[in-house]
Amino acid sequence: MSIRVAVQGALGQMGREVIKAVAAAPDMTLTGGCDARAPENTMSFDGVELFITADVNKCLVKTKPDVVVDFSLASAVPQTAETAARAGVSLVIGTTGLTPQVLARLETLTREFNIGIVVAPNFALGAVLMMELARTAAKYLDWAEIIELHHEKKADAPSGTAIATARMMQAARETPFESPKDETEHKSRGEEFYGVPIHSVRLPGLVAHQEVIFGTVGQTLSIRHDSISRDSFMPGVLLAVREIAKRRGQFIFGLNKLLGF
Amino acid sequence: MSIRVAVQGALGQMGREVIKAVAAAPDMTLTGGCDARAPENTMSFDGVELFITADVNKCLVKTKPDVVVDFSLASAVPQTAETAARAGVSLVIGTTGLTPQVLARLETLTREFNIGIVVAPNFALGAVLMMELARTAAKYLDWAEIIELHHEKKADAPSGTAIATARMMQAARETPFESPKDETEHKSRGEEFYGVPIHSVRLPGLVAHQEVIFGTVGQTLSIRHDSISRDSFMPGVLLAVREIAKRRGQFIFGLNKLLGF
Amino acid sequence: MSIRVAVQGALGQMGREVIKAVAAAPDMTLTGGCDARAPENTMSFDGVELFITADVNKCLVKTKPDVVVDFSLASAVPQTAETAARAGVSLVIGTTGLTPQVLARLETLTREFNIGIVVAPNFALGAVLMMELARTAAKYLDWAEIIELHHEKKADAPSGTAIATARMMQAARETPFESPKDETEHKSRGEEFYGVPIHSVRLPGLVAHQEVIFGTVGQTLSIRHDSISRDSFMPGVLLAVREIAKRRGQFIFGLNKLLGF
Amino acid sequence: MSIRVAVQGALGQMGREVIKAVAAAPDMTLTGGCDARAPENTMSFDGVELFITADVNKCLVKTKPDVVVDFSLASAVPQTAETAARAGVSLVIGTTGLTPQVLARLETLTREFNIGIVVAPNFALGAVLMMELARTAAKYLDWAEIIELHHEKKADAPSGTAIATARMMQAARETPFESPKDETEHKSRGEEFYGVPIHSVRLPGLVAHQEVIFGTVGQTLSIRHDSISRDSFMPGVLLAVREIAKRRGQFIFGLNKLLGF
Repeated sequence: MSIRVAVQGALGQMGREVIKAVAAAPDMTLTGGCDARAPENTMSFDGVELFITADVNKCLVKTKPDVVVDFSLASAVPQTAETAARAGVSLVIGTTGLTPQVLARLETLTREFNIGIVVAPNFALGAVLMMELARTAAKYLDWAEIIELHHEKKADAPSGTAIATARMMQAARETPFESPKDETEHKSRGEEFYGVPIHSVRLPGLVAHQEVIFGTVGQTLSIRHDSISRDSFMPGVLLAVREIAKRRGQFIFGLNKLLGF
Repeated sequence: MSIRVAVQGALGQMGREVIKAVAAAPDMTLTGGCDARAPENTMSFDGVELFITADVNKCLVKTKPDVVVDFSLASAVPQTAETAARAGVSLVIGTTGLTPQVLARLETLTREFNIGIVVAPNFALGAVLMMELARTAAKYLDWAEIIELHHEKKADAPSGTAIATARMMQAARETPFESPKDETEHKSRGEEFYGVPIHSVRLPGLVAHQEVIFGTVGQTLSIRHDSISRDSFMPGVLLAVREIAKRRGQFIFGLNKLLGF
Repeated sequence: MSIRVAVQGALGQMGREVIKAVAAAPDMTLTGGCDARAPENTMSFDGVELFITADVNKCLVKTKPDVVVDFSLASAVPQTAETAARAGVSLVIGTTGLTPQVLARLETLTREFNIGIVVAPNFALGAVLMMELARTAAKYLDWAEIIELHHEKKADAPSGTAIATARMMQAARETPFESPKDETEHKSRGEEFYGVPIHSVRLPGLVAHQEVIFGTVGQTLSIRHDSISRDSFMPGVLLAVREIAKRRGQFIFGLNKLLGF
Repeated sequence: MSIRVAVQGALGQMGREVIKAVAAAPDMTLTGGCDARAPENTMSFDGVELFITADVNKCLVKTKPDVVVDFSLASAVPQTAETAARAGVSLVIGTTGLTPQVLARLETLTREFNIGIVVAPNFALGAVLMMELARTAAKYLDWAEIIELHHEKKADAPSGTAIATARMMQAARETPFESPKDETEHKSRGEEFYGVPIHSVRLPGLVAHQEVIFGTVGQTLSIRHDSISRDSFMPGVLLAVREIAKRRGQFIFGLNKLLGF
């Protein structure tokens, strides 16, 4: 049976991407959109005709979704969530900047109204998987380095993802990572975080890539994520919709938690 | 505290590798060796002086190991295990060809004598991790292909590891993997197992390598194992020794089970 | 000194890309555009104000370019070339479908009017380099395989580039490539062209990638091209502009010839 | 027709490798060996019966080689070369530490006696090719970085090969390589040589690997050399034997020159 999905923040950049992704998903039906900026109307998105309104409640009553995907403003989330909860509609929330108070209230709503809610600050499925697989391997392999490669305009180095990966890898271990005995300073050896040297490559023609290489006697194990478009979040959003539709009563924070890591 | 380790099958090829690996491990003490072919004597292995005897019981009584690592003959395993069990010594068994009856008896011994036993037909830690990580990723990503690369003298194609990986990947999923809509037969598209196309590269200068590539919107995730020497089993053996020393009463079959997968 | 560049076919898809690329090149000045569909006018392209006209001669007289870049229609090329030649303006022609007669006339024009002309059916600089480097390595290394990886919607397999690469590689050799002695048919071993097995991977998240792997005793050499956007032709076009501006009297067919291969 | 090859320095480590490689080459005949340490005798090398003597002249007269491969001592090279030259025998010399005077005399010998001589300090064919291909690509692509990966016991970083590659790459260009505008110091950005950032990875399970990555709009080009055994020089030695057998009167210094770069 098709999962019925409405999109809150339908006129925003992420909202438009979600509309296209849901419309293309064979196991979902796009029911409608809400946006504070929207007139009540039917609009066309890349050929998809969609009922769209500024009034969340009207959207829910009229289009009867199972799940609302929310990429809007932190200030709008509480009212959207209350309205959805009262209508028995589950939520996938990608809006960032939610306060601990709001998160606590969302958790309460899931129990009170037996709906499911996923909140994830990052829906990059491949990146989340790369980090989790690296965390798993880090338990068993004592040497590791990270190479992250990005387009030449990226301002910072190393990337936040690389540092977060190193932190997760070390946290999975009982002992520090090993490193060469020689303690001479070599500038080419990268910058160490949590015992893991990180190397940053910056070239045009790259988008966002990261490779974690583990070494042990006679072998290496490498985990690599290559992202070629900056809007590669839709697989994660669709996965969240599919999962939360089955998980009434659950509040889940983070795509990795949703995946069971 | 150092783990005391004796080696059964000390004069065999794998036994000699285990002796070197244990001698080099900072958290282990090599206590002695047994081998049906051995005189009772002290022998030198690459500079390591080692007490070695044909009599397993004498080896255990005299050298007091915590763990015996056994790479010998299937026919010798039952007696070695009984002797070790009665001495309260745990076992890591890499000897292949054990019958279900022998395996059942080994399981009984772990409970009867409160020792730990690991039996693993394959101690290639990196390969086992690669397969397990691929299984994990296969749950969330709907497209995958495998490229395995080996030296030019490998007789079969694709490799057994590649086929086993594809089988594990499919078993982790609820739906089949996706594939291109176009159903024209293209010889370059590899050989499909469990819905996963496998490509086999054979070149001199390669040893044993495998890459599993997953794809989804805007990104790919790759897991790669490169083995550069044919005796890269020692990290797995040492890991088994460390684990089983802590797990009295447990019988574990397969390195993956030992790792908690 | 800046190279002055006008664009013929300015309103087409490639023409617009060339306008952006020339405008962004620090060593070039974009002087104007022509297009059969254009009114005489000044138009704005992504913020670049440009004089544009349907009359090639007027464009040349008024904007005084050193080089005209032509991505238009095969039928329009002869007149554009004659006009440019008479004005002493060199040409970079990416328009495809030129007949041998037109090519012969272009060659004559370069000598008659002492201008330079580059005609290239493919300006993918990285792909051309990959092929030429593979051709060079093929002279010295006796084993090779090609892995080409493309998005899942690509209809054919293997790619034309992969087949062309294999052909160039074999043509550079005096003897056939070597292959495993075992002659058993293995479907996973790819499809052989010119003695080189080609493997085709098709996954979402890929765009256009090719790796040529050579093997010999104890080592492999790999040459890989990763193209992440389908309009990665501009570096080749700019290179052609820079080169032809220095090469009066020369007619060059193919980006590889321009590069001196 | 088979090329007849004798080995000077037959009892040394490299000499023994050459003997095995020549014996296995289908287009060569191993005729004999010389070594200052050798008794006149027939010796067995891995099953190959070989006439071996301390007297170079006797070896040449008795075994009639077309080419002598010399991996001996710098002090012994002049006499070996004079003797071979007078016998009309060409030379492949891998012995290091030859003075400019000796090299000049070797060059004279090639003309005086119409023999061919190759002197190469490094026969690593794959590494030489990688450097030459990188030099070629460096002419056309304005951004580059180098990642070199070695076993964890390598003392220095970056590797000499990486620095030499960067130097060759820059020397092939008219302008400096480009780099990110942002000039903030980031430790993870590697160590720059000749405008090329070099990153050094050190892990067990690696042997000796280097990847040169070039970037431009929408694409990257990568050239990678993976060496899995420390004695991967034989393909280069055999290539030198084959080439010099055809080049009477030529003196060639460096494997790259022999390859025509």
